[in-house]
Amino acid sequence: MNQLWIRNGLFVTMDDKAPVIEGHMVVTDDQITYIGEQEPQNLSGQVQKMDGKGLAFMPGLINAHGHAAMSLLRGYSDDQNLQVWLEQKMWPMEGRYVASDTKAGTALAIVEMLRSGTTTFLDMYDRMDEVAKVTEQSGIRGILMRGAIGLCSEQEQQAKLEEAIAFALEWNGKADGRITTMLSPHAPYTCPPSFIEKFVQAAHDHSLALHTHMSETLREVEQNVRDYGVRPAEHLHKLGFFSRPALVAHAVHLNDEEIAMLAQYDVSVAHNPVSNLKLASGVARLPEMLQAGIKIALGTDSAASNNNLDLFQEITMAALLHKGVSGDPTVIPAYQALKLGTSSGAAAIWKSKEIGMLKSGMKADMIAIDIDQPQFFPLTDIVSHLVYAGNGRDVRHVWVNGRQVVANGVCTMLDEEKIRREAQASFERLLNG
Amino acid sequence: MNQLWIRNGLFVTMDDKAPVIEGHMVVTDDQITYIGEQEPQNLSGQVQKMDGKGLAFMPGLINAHGHAAMSLLRGYSDDQNLQVWLEQKMWPMEGRYVASDTKAGTALAIVEMLRSGTTTFLDMYDRMDEVAKVTEQSGIRGILMRGAIGLCSEQEQQAKLEEAIAFALEWNGKADGRITTMLSPHAPYTCPPSFIEKFVQAAHDHSLALHTHMSETLREVEQNVRDYGVRPAEHLHKLGFFSRPALVAHAVHLNDEEIAMLAQYDVSVAHNPVSNLKLASGVARLPEMLQAGIKIALGTDSAASNNNLDLFQEITMAALLHKGVSGDPTVIPAYQALKLGTSSGAAAIWKSKEIGMLKSGMKADMIAIDIDQPQFFPLTDIVSHLVYAGNGRDVRHVWVNGRQVVANGVCTMLDEEKIRREAQASFERLLNG
Repeated sequence: MNQLWIRNGLFVTMDDKAPVIEGHMVVTDDQITYIGEQEPQNLSGQVQKMDGKGLAFMPGLINAHGHAAMSLLRGYSDDQNLQVWLEQKMWPMEGRYVASDTKAGTALAIVEMLRSGTTTFLDMYDRMDEVAKVTEQSGIRGILMRGAIGLCSEQEQQAKLEEAIAFALEWNGKADGRITTMLSPHAPYTCPPSFIEKFVQAAHDHSLALHTHMSETLREVEQNVRDYGVRPAEHLHKLGFFSRPALVAHAVHLNDEEIAMLAQYDVSVAHNPVSNLKLASGVARLPEMLQAGIKIALGTDSAASNNNLDLFQEITMAALLHKGVSGDPTVIPAYQALKLGTSSGAAAIWKSKEIGMLKSGMKADMIAIDIDQPQFFPLTDIVSHLVYAGNGRDVRHVWVNGRQVVANGVCTMLDEEKIRREAQASFERLLNG
Repeated sequence: MNQLWIRNGLFVTMDDKAPVIEGHMVVTDDQITYIGEQEPQNLSGQVQKMDGKGLAFMPGLINAHGHAAMSLLRGYSDDQNLQVWLEQKMWPMEGRYVASDTKAGTALAIVEMLRSGTTTFLDMYDRMDEVAKVTEQSGIRGILMRGAIGLCSEQEQQAKLEEAIAFALEWNGKADGRITTMLSPHAPYTCPPSFIEKFVQAAHDHSLALHTHMSETLREVEQNVRDYGVRPAEHLHKLGFFSRPALVAHAVHLNDEEIAMLAQYDVSVAHNPVSNLKLASGVARLPEMLQAGIKIALGTDSAASNNNLDLFQEITMAALLHKGVSGDPTVIPAYQALKLGTSSGAAAIWKSKEIGMLKSGMKADMIAIDIDQPQFFPLTDIVSHLVYAGNGRDVRHVWVNGRQVVANGVCTMLDEEKIRREAQASFERLLNG
C-alpha cells in the first residue's frame, strides 16, 4: 500500500459542496482516501509526505476531443480556407503516415498534455494500437477509438468497422483501467447512413458509447440538409445514434430544436472553442446548451487546428468568448468554465464517479500548480486566477491513478528529449514524402 | 562599451525584408549593431558571448494600453455586469489607494509583464510619480501619463490638468530615455468637452501625444450621441483631439465612417481583445480597421478586467477571435498578429524607429524564448508556433535598452518575492478599508 499525504495545501476540489479547501489530502494507491481541513487520522504504514506550500491542487483536466498523432502537423498549415487546409495540406500528409509516425505524434501530444495538466484525453484516429501503447506507457488516462471515414467501398467500410470493434474490445479496461474505448464513425458527412447504423448496432452489441463530429461548419449542415433532408442532429437521431450514450464534437451550428433534442436524448457535447475560431467554423451556442442542461466537456481538437493541447486555454477561452459574443459578462463564470474542464467534463464522458473532483473515493488524477508567481497575486479568488490568469505552463506535478507522471514539469514515464527528436524526424520524412 | 554576441540563434526579426534569420546578433551598449547569417566581423574589446541554441529571439512585446496599479484588484470582481464591477467594486477600492498601493500594484504588474516578454508598456493612471519610479528601477520601457477624469469641479479639473502636464514634462526622456510621456483625458464620457479641449491645447503647447478611451461599450456610444449629438470619433475630432498624434483604446463600436475618419487623421488604436471579451464590451472590427490602414497596437487593459498581463495572450486572441467571428480563416494571419504586438505596435505608438524589430540601429529590446518544449515541435513555422502555441511563460530572458532585465525567468532589477508580499499586504489593507 502506497500512501501520499499532502500537507497544508490549497485544494480546488471542484466539489460544489466545498469547492476550495485549505488543508490536507491523502492518496492511497490509486485513490483519494481523505481530503479535509484537519490532519488525517490513523495513517499506518509507509506514508510519503509532501508540503503543499506554494501550490494549488486541483483535479486533472479532461480533453474530450482530439487527434493526438496530428501534432506532427502543428504549424504545417495555418490561416487557410478549410478546403485548402484539409484537402491540400492535411490529407496528403496523413496519407503518408506509417505506424512510427502515429506513435511519434501521439507521444509528442501526450507529453504536451501531461505537462499542461491534462490527465484524461479522448482520441479518435487510426492505427489505434500505437496510440494505446503510448497511452499505456505514459501513465495518462485515455478514451480511445478508431475513427472511421466511410468514403470508400463497402468492403473497406467493413474492414474499418471490424478493426474499430476489435480495437475497442481488446483495449477496453487495459492499463489498470486507464484505457477505455468507444466506437466512432467520423462524421455524418464522411459516413453513409448505413455505415453509421452498423456502428450503432455494434455499440449496442458490445455496450460501447459513441463519438462523432457533428455540425462543425455551416457548410456541412447545409450539405446534410441537401443530402438527407434534415439537419445533422435529426439525421443522427434517425440512425439511432442517440440510443447509446453519445458524445458529439463541435456542435457549433445548432438551432433551438437541435439543442432541445440533444438535451432530450442526453447527448454530450465536446466544445472546442479554439479550433472552432482558428478554422473560422464559428462560435458554438455554449450558454444556450448549458441552459438546456446538455452535458459539456472541452476539447482542443488536434494541434494542426489549435495549435496547442493546453486545455487551460480552452477553459479560459470558454469563459471569455461567450461573454463577448453574447454581450453578457455574467455568462460562463470562472467556476463554471473550470468545471467544463474537470467535473462537468467528467460527467459528459460518463466518468463522474471516478474523475473530475478531488474527493474521497475518486481516482487520484490531480495536478499541482505553482501559485508563487506574479499572475496569481494577490491571492484573492483562486478559481478566477486559474481560469483567467493561469495556464498549462503553471503545472508542476501531475498524478494519474495515484502515480506521479509529471514531476517538476517533466514527464516521469517518457523520454521527452527522444520524443521531440523522433517527432521532428517523422515530420521531415512526411514532408519529403 | 559593452558588447553581447548571440551565436547560432533563431531570430524572428519582424523585419519584413528578412522575418526569420538563423545566425548571429550583436548588441553594443543599448543598441543592436549587427544581425545576420554570417558571424560578425571586427568585434573589438570585451565581448560577452551567448549560445543561442534552443532559444528563439524576437523583439520585446509592446503593451499599448493598461493601468498597472490595478493588478492589486486581479480576481477581486469577475463575471459581473459592468456597472456593478465598476461602481460597486473597482471605484470603492481604488478610492482607498495611497501611494504605497500604486507602487505595490505597479511593481507586481511590471514583474508580470517583464517575465512574459513585454518590454514597453503604456500606463494611464494616477500618482504617476510612483509608477515612474518603479518603471525607472525595473528596467522596463514606459509610456506614462496621468489619466484625468473630469467629473469634478473646474478647480479640481484644473489641478488634474496641471498635475498631468507637470508629470509629463518632468519625466519625458528620463531613465536613459526609457520613459516618455503623453497627455490623457480619461474618456469622452468622463470628461466634459471643455476639459478635453484643455488637454488638446496642452498637447500642442508641449508637443505631446494624446491618449484616451473611446467607444469601448455600445452604451457609451449611445450616451455620446444623446449628450453631444455625434458618435465619439466625430466628437473627439470636433474637440481637436486628432490634431495631435493620438492613440485611442478599445474602439470596439465603430461604424464605417468612424473607421474612415480614424484612418484619415492617422489615429492609432490600442486593441484589447481579452478585456473587451471579459467585460462583454464586444468584438472590435480589427480586420476592417487594418484594411483601412489604421495603425493598431495591442493592450491587455488592467489585470482587473483581463485578468493577466501576458501580451502573448492578446496576440493569440487577435489571431483567433476575428477568424471565428468573421467566418474567414485567412484574416489576421499569424505573422500579422505577431506584428501587432511588435513592429506594428511600435508604429502605432510612434516608436518604430527605435523598437519593434531586431535590426541594426534599433534599441536592444528583445526576448529569448525556450523552444525546447513540446508545444514548439515539430519546428516547422516559428512564427505560427509563437502565435498559436507559445505564451509568456516560455520567455526565459529579456533585455531592454541592452540591459538584461529578466534572466532565466526571474527579474534581475526587482525583488520579486518582496513585491508579491507587498502586493498581498496592500490588497488586504484595501479590502479591510
